[in-house]
Amino acid sequence: DGIRFDVSRKMRTGFPEAVLASGKSDDDLVDIILDVRDVIVTRLPGERFEAIRDRVEHLREDGYRVDYHERARVLVVKSGKPATIGRVGVLAAGTSDIPVAEEARVVAEEAGCEVMTAYDVGVAGIHRLIEPLREMLEADVRVLIVVAGMEGALPSVVAGLVHVPVIGVPTSVGYGVGEGGFTALNSMLQSCSPGIGVVNIDNGFGAAVLAVKILRAME
Amino acid sequence: DGIRFDVSRKMRTGFPEAVLASGKSDDDLVDIILDVRDVIVTRLPGERFEAIRDRVEHLREDGYRVDYHERARVLVVKSGKPATIGRVGVLAAGTSDIPVAEEARVVAEEAGCEVMTAYDVGVAGIHRLIEPLREMLEADVRVLIVVAGMEGALPSVVAGLVHVPVIGVPTSVGYGVGEGGFTALNSMLQSCSPGIGVVNIDNGFGAAVLAVKILRAME
Amino acid sequence: DGIRFDVSRKMRTGFPEAVLASGKSDDDLVDIILDVRDVIVTRLPGERFEAIRDRVEHLREDGYRVDYHERARVLVVKSGKPATIGRVGVLAAGTSDIPVAEEARVVAEEAGCEVMTAYDVGVAGIHRLIEPLREMLEADVRVLIVVAGMEGALPSVVAGLVHVPVIGVPTSVGYGVGEGGFTALNSMLQSCSPGIGVVNIDNGFGAAVLAVKILRAME
Amino acid sequence: DGIRFDVSRKMRTGFPEAVLASGKSDDDLVDIILDVRDVIVTRLPGERFEAIRDRVEHLREDGYRVDYHERARVLVVKSGKPATIGRVGVLAAGTSDIPVAEEARVVAEEAGCEVMTAYDVGVAGIHRLIEPLREMLEADVRVLIVVAGMEGALPSVVAGLVHVPVIGVPTSVGYGVGEGGFTALNSMLQSCSPGIGVVNIDNGFGAAVLAVKILRAME
Amino acid sequence: DGIRFDVSRKMRTGFPEAVLASGKSDDDLVDIILDVRDVIVTRLPGERFEAIRDRVEHLREDGYRVDYHERARVLVVKSGKPATIGRVGVLAAGTSDIPVAEEARVVAEEAGCEVMTAYDVGVAGIHRLIEPLREMLEADVRVLIVVAGMEGALPSVVAGLVHVPVIGVPTSVGYGVGEGGFTALNSMLQSCSPGIGVVNIDNGFGAAVLAVKILRAME
Amino acid sequence: DGIRFDVSRKMRTGFPEAVLASGKSDDDLVDIILDVRDVIVTRLPGERFEAIRDRVEHLREDGYRVDYHERARVLVVKSGKPATIGRVGVLAAGTSDIPVAEEARVVAEEAGCEVMTAYDVGVAGIHRLIEPLREMLEADVRVLIVVAGMEGALPSVVAGLVHVPVIGVPTSVGYGVGEGGFTALNSMLQSCSPGIGVVNIDNGFGAAVLAVKILRAME
Amino acid sequence: DGIRFDVSRKMRTGFPEAVLASGKSDDDLVDIILDVRDVIVTRLPGERFEAIRDRVEHLREDGYRVDYHERARVLVVKSGKPATIGRVGVLAAGTSDIPVAEEARVVAEEAGCEVMTAYDVGVAGIHRLIEPLREMLEADVRVLIVVAGMEGALPSVVAGLVHVPVIGVPTSVGYGVGEGGFTALNSMLQSCSPGIGVVNIDNGFGAAVLAVKILRAME
Amino acid sequence: DGIRFDVSRKMRTGFPEAVLASGKSDDDLVDIILDVRDVIVTRLPGERFEAIRDRVEHLREDGYRVDYHERARVLVVKSGKPATIGRVGVLAAGTSDIPVAEEARVVAEEAGCEVMTAYDVGVAGIHRLIEPLREMLEADVRVLIVVAGMEGALPSVVAGLVHVPVIGVPTSVGYGVGEGGFTALNSMLQSCSPGIGVVNIDNGFGAAVLAVKILRAME
Ligand SMILES: Nc1ncnc2c1ncn2[C@@H]1O[C@H](COP(=O)(O)O)[C@@H](O)[C@H]1O
Ligand SMILES: Nc1ncnc2c1ncn2[C@@H]1O[C@H](COP(=O)(O)O)[C@@H](O)[C@H]1O
Ligand SMILES: Nc1ncnc2c1ncn2[C@@H]1O[C@H](COP(=O)(O)O)[C@@H](O)[C@H]1O
Ligand SMILES: Nc1ncnc2c1ncn2[C@@H]1O[C@H](COP(=O)(O)O)[C@@H](O)[C@H]1O
Ligand SMILES: [Mg+2]
Ligand SMILES: [Mg+2]
Ligand SMILES: [Mg+2]
Ligand SMILES: [Mg+2]
Ligand SMILES: [Mg+2]
Ligand SMILES: [Mg+2]
Ligand SMILES: [Mg+2]
Ligand SMILES: [Mg+2]
Repeated sequence: DGIRFDVSRKMRTGFPEAVLASGKSDDDLVDIILDVRDVIVTRLPGERFEAIRDRVEHLREDGYRVDYHERARVLVVKSGKPATIGRVGVLAAGTSDIPVAEEARVVAEEAGCEVMTAYDVGVAGIHRLIEPLREMLEADVRVLIVVAGMEGALPSVVAGLVHVPVIGVPTSVGYGVGEGGFTALNSMLQSCSPGIGVVNIDNGFGAAVLAVKILRAME
Repeated sequence: DGIRFDVSRKMRTGFPEAVLASGKSDDDLVDIILDVRDVIVTRLPGERFEAIRDRVEHLREDGYRVDYHERARVLVVKSGKPATIGRVGVLAAGTSDIPVAEEARVVAEEAGCEVMTAYDVGVAGIHRLIEPLREMLEADVRVLIVVAGMEGALPSVVAGLVHVPVIGVPTSVGYGVGEGGFTALNSMLQSCSPGIGVVNIDNGFGAAVLAVKILRAME
Repeated sequence: DGIRFDVSRKMRTGFPEAVLASGKSDDDLVDIILDVRDVIVTRLPGERFEAIRDRVEHLREDGYRVDYHERARVLVVKSGKPATIGRVGVLAAGTSDIPVAEEARVVAEEAGCEVMTAYDVGVAGIHRLIEPLREMLEADVRVLIVVAGMEGALPSVVAGLVHVPVIGVPTSVGYGVGEGGFTALNSMLQSCSPGIGVVNIDNGFGAAVLAVKILRAME
Repeated sequence: DGIRFDVSRKMRTGFPEAVLASGKSDDDLVDIILDVRDVIVTRLPGERFEAIRDRVEHLREDGYRVDYHERARVLVVKSGKPATIGRVGVLAAGTSDIPVAEEARVVAEEAGCEVMTAYDVGVAGIHRLIEPLREMLEADVRVLIVVAGMEGALPSVVAGLVHVPVIGVPTSVGYGVGEGGFTALNSMLQSCSPGIGVVNIDNGFGAAVLAVKILRAME
Repeated sequence: DGIRFDVSRKMRTGFPEAVLASGKSDDDLVDIILDVRDVIVTRLPGERFEAIRDRVEHLREDGYRVDYHERARVLVVKSGKPATIGRVGVLAAGTSDIPVAEEARVVAEEAGCEVMTAYDVGVAGIHRLIEPLREMLEADVRVLIVVAGMEGALPSVVAGLVHVPVIGVPTSVGYGVGEGGFTALNSMLQSCSPGIGVVNIDNGFGAAVLAVKILRAME
Repeated sequence: DGIRFDVSRKMRTGFPEAVLASGKSDDDLVDIILDVRDVIVTRLPGERFEAIRDRVEHLREDGYRVDYHERARVLVVKSGKPATIGRVGVLAAGTSDIPVAEEARVVAEEAGCEVMTAYDVGVAGIHRLIEPLREMLEADVRVLIVVAGMEGALPSVVAGLVHVPVIGVPTSVGYGVGEGGFTALNSMLQSCSPGIGVVNIDNGFGAAVLAVKILRAME
Repeated sequence: DGIRFDVSRKMRTGFPEAVLASGKSDDDLVDIILDVRDVIVTRLPGERFEAIRDRVEHLREDGYRVDYHERARVLVVKSGKPATIGRVGVLAAGTSDIPVAEEARVVAEEAGCEVMTAYDVGVAGIHRLIEPLREMLEADVRVLIVVAGMEGALPSVVAGLVHVPVIGVPTSVGYGVGEGGFTALNSMLQSCSPGIGVVNIDNGFGAAVLAVKILRAME
Repeated sequence: DGIRFDVSRKMRTGFPEAVLASGKSDDDLVDIILDVRDVIVTRLPGERFEAIRDRVEHLREDGYRVDYHERARVLVVKSGKPATIGRVGVLAAGTSDIPVAEEARVVAEEAGCEVMTAYDVGVAGIHRLIEPLREMLEADVRVLIVVAGMEGALPSVVAGLVHVPVIGVPTSVGYGVGEGGFTALNSMLQSCSPGIGVVNIDNGFGAAVLAVKILRAME
């Protein structure tokens, strides 16, 4: 009790309520999943999934997919496949930024996006960026999600090179002044390349929702 | 000397370099304007425009519009009218947020957007929001720019009600813990309504650029 | 030794000293409980209660209630029931805010309040708020305690709709810029709905004490 | 245009929208005052009042009071006197905190409170506090508004001595680590005397609104 | 290797170098203790002392005291007793502040101070303070060390009542805005009672050193 | 009205209440000075003194000294000379720190200290420090007040060299990360030379009060 | 009096003490200049130079250059020309960063560096950077000073492309989260391109001193 | 997959990409090491090295050194010895700063530097510094890396005494206001000894890279 799942959110906003696992007990999670069924759970580490696995996998017998994405820490329980809505590119600056990028990828794919990815293409070796970026643009991606920790410079460089809207996702990868992701966040907000839409630190989920809303607005 | 205007930016990114007046001397501004001509100058207060007016208005004789928007503090020097690219809605929470909202409106219109506005519709009297929002959605706006200072709650409320992508613009309106706009900024980034693309504090310009890129991506 | 329980506080301020378990050893806690007896212990997690349970439950034989509220992490040792002093409403924005809301509920009830609750009614789905709020007002609640983490917008929205005084309780629920609860705190302090009395982050106890003082002042 | 005065706020929340002068032009202020008439304007420094005086004082001919309170920086335009609703005490720690205390006093009086004041009673000379506090309690004040800058300790000391609810108002009086009022604010929020309802720095207005709501809730 | 114990510090500054256990390995600690012998080790938790106990206690055979003070987390290895240099009072606001107060007490005693203590005398129940304070003054204490977390108001109140110099020691006891001890620290620095000498958060050791230097300066 | 000068403070704490000019109007200042007479006013810039000069200088006719110290921004109105209580040294790191050092000097002298000064002796040229420090110690100063902005390292170096207690006064001299004086403040609090008593940024007054209390405690 | 110019600093550290004009009165400045003569004054705005011009220009009659660099806000009073010590490159990201870059240039040239500059080459249009960078490297610059405000990404990009040591100079150019230069500072410190030596915000002077020390170390 | 090792970085910047172990799984680390081979891994604690030891040590059979430096937490896998490029001095203020100093030493040695070290020479006992510093200068070190936590004053003192460039490395050693290393960082940036090149907190690696680039630039 106490939980009021926002069942009409998909209708109102085009995107269903997702469940943020952190701060909820395993029992609460299982209750929600069994109750709502068509649902995405984010920030669910491997051990937590193992702990609830047995109580949710039987949903497969009712025709649901029960897909756990380890790197992305996302659990998907869905009964169907979404219709395709367009193409999105996801870039990550360093290898430590990949979990956040993967969270964005999985959420976007579950909403019907075709996602192209290129990871470890940060500004310390900017030549690594050019080729994957060209491929994405030629493949007609409509939105770019650019994930970066440390000094968070990648979205600025990318947004200075392309037409498509850029969504900047700062990550908490870093130490010293970069601890917690605030340096990356502020770099993206104060970018000299105007027009980057920034989401909260480590918020791959929110970046995907924004990308999906942009693609939907085009229909 | 020292200034290298980024003439190819429009071609690369779909949006020409604009000139941020703050931090530049009047002489530098006039030099750039006369040199580049098709240009938008932001953050130019009324007194500064008066100081350079005589040195730029003669461009009208060469067929340029020289339009100064007082509330928005934006100077537009352009030789033509842009082609229409779609409809954008701009909401402002309080009356003190209007200058930033107007900066977004002017920049978006100069890029070809049709802009609908509704100001002073903040969450302290949330009933004032419903009617203008309905009108915008019925008129088929494709992106909403939501400007708010103080506690910055308006984008969260709006994004919980609509399908279209929301761009959140925090303003430096506020005092005490709200001084400088950081409370509004953080509220938008940490919104429980996912999918808000946030720009820097008082950055109406950047919000408009993002809106334009989204509209362009739809073409 | 070293502990001077403030035995006259109830007489002076209308509310007895409560014991904050964090920062005290189990032995200190048991000593205080056995010594003072009529006492409320806050921030006592389940495992800590288990560790001291055997040493305090025998107080039941002396006519005391020994009630442990798990979600609220509150232990109540009392010999009687308080006289009823009025009705309080407790709202929580998200499910992760419930422990703090429950702390407020238990403490208020132990002081004689009748408490009505409505949880998971945050601004991302504002329609969920209307019905429970109406019921509370019709039931004549005299004070509303509104608990919210993330961007902390719920107290602003509620205070824009009702006559009764609103006590805002920010929680440390959130991540990135919301980590630690400062975004929620600042939103409540900088609310454009004037007249919210704010307490420290996660301080459900303090909110209840303020509510009780308000109800008492009415007598 | 752009301004939507929240005319129903009094009906909804028991307190009419007030006008915050800072961030609005003189012309905007005069427009609102002449338009709304029954209105309170806060944060209006003496020079600004002088600048608009001639354009608003003629309202007296229509039966309005036009009272400017210099120390409080508040302008009151009202056609009647409010009914009495109860007694409030206002304490200020230092002489520099008086303007904020006066803002609270004027706003509370205009809403029907009888206000008792005692200023310059801070903790550096705590003996100065006892006498005025006793008088207030004997006169049956129902709420105490306690205003303090510097280290903001006064509300803690007062709340440790009295039954009535305490509203803490931190001020920006201070320097070095006290600059801006954050030390005072945090002291009040982290008070070891539970049950203080805190408002934003320098927000005498909000403290008065909360006091009024508490008094009204008693009716 | 790498360690250069500052053997002449006592001669230069009147106080020997002490060893801060945190950040040093057990092996390093044992090496220093066996090497220097007359030494005080601070911030040594119980478990760490147990881990090295066997390797240092044999120093007793060489005529050293090896005293571990659990609450203070201080290990004293000394061959003699210091000459008496004067009387110091140590006050603590809450029970959770006692470890820091005890660190100050042990260090001061080892330098020859007679120490009087009174704990749990914070401003929420200020009457508890008066009696112990009077006793200390009558016993002719020359310096007061006042330890407080939360809002850190106790040194302000004490310094407003007494002639003797007050040393303020903020502690990291607190939560929300009080987390880490910064609220207490800032309160002491911004006190309206002038003349408090403040040391770093949780720095009972530094407070004792300052007290000792003051007492020595009197000789 | 509103001002309650703390007339018994000298008796209670050994130091009379001083008047902080900032935040008080000229009229308030004159009222207090004429009323209290034996008084010290701090933070009174030259122009403000000029503005009130005529209204206070006639006190000379009643036998008062009316001494304005320009660099220190301190006004002294006194009828006698204090008895000598001991010797204090004041060091300043840079020339820009001199005003704060002078505030300390004037206040200490007015309380009966003999003050020796050495300015511009910061750690960038540490050889400049040795000679003046030796002279002070030979002249038997009992307390050292060490004033420094920028990185605030001077008190650490001095406290590593001397027996006498060191009072650290950070100043707001600096820019970038040093802006406002927080770097200097934190350096002094986190000094690896233990036993520095720190006061608020730019608080030369408080440093002098502490020095005086230390000297008095020796009597 | 009070000023002890550090005359041996050049001998000790290879670089003479410079005079920071901010925080010093005009009279103090003139005294130092006439006294020391071979001296560089930094942070001297145009109006301040005009105010002291007449009192220092006569030094030309004694064979001194008296050169005021307006954009750099630097005054040079020197009797000779330094020997050439090597080549330095100075890059600036935006036009508003030029004053800081010029401060570095003038100071470096006065110490004997040959300086090449390229301004307005920031990452929003990264193609503008390549050509000037190539020229500098071909001309054999030994150190690069890279000046940037806003998100401060330029040093990261440059250091990812070149062998020579990079000195990063953040500037206070920016607004919102970029206000004051902390975003640029943190970006440079947390750069994913290792080996950038960072100086304080707006500290062109310090960057030049470091470049000179590096060139000298090569001799 | 996802990892694009920057193989050309050595050629472009003179220093090969190193691997930061934190944030990468053991499997990722082993993959990279076996793939790249000539590689340095930093921030690899002893337990993590033990966990992968068996999977990398067999590289010795292929002629690689596999050297794990425990204090420095650095793993070196190299097939040859670098050519000597010059001499570097590494100073550490306290014993707790040694791990960061050792990281700098190992990385510099692997790039061909001859490194001299002197640890535990901080400003609380400044006499300990003089002898080792003299030896380093006489041995002709070309760059000094100065590592310090707490108040971080050592680089200021050193840079005031020597000609050679100083690289300041703040460490996270400290507590209270020193927690995390920001006090040390800011002290170095705001040093009154100009010309210190500062790197991120705990970034011994970056300091070594900068030192190497400086030495290389001399060739
Ligand atoms: N002194 C004050 N402090 C805080 N809020 C205020 C104050 N005076 C007025 N307000 C509120 O601030 C809001 C201002 O919104 P607006 O005038 O539309 O920019 C209104 O809701 C007022 O009720
Ligand atoms: N320069 C100063 N720095 C800090 N406190 C001061 C200074 N001058 C006076 N004070 C104290 O500040 C308090 C001012 O309170 P009030 O004058 O009532 O606002 C008094 O307790 C004074 O003793
Ligand atoms: N632009 C500058 N930025 C940083 N430090 C400077 C600058 N100009 C001069 N300095 C140094 O700042 C210190 C000023 O100390 P003082 O002049 O005694 O207050 C001297 O050590 C100068 O070398
Ligand atoms: N109002 C604005 N907010 C943020 N960025 C802006 C604004 N106006 C112009 N810009 C961008 O800021 C940069 C200014 O660089 P510069 O003029 O070289 O100092 C350019 O890339 C502009 O596109
Ligand atoms: Mg990589
Ligand atoms: Mg409004
Ligand atoms: Mg929910
Ligand atoms: Mg006073
Ligand atoms: Mg207690
Ligand atoms: Mg100097
Ligand atoms: Mg530019
Ligand atoms: Mg040591």
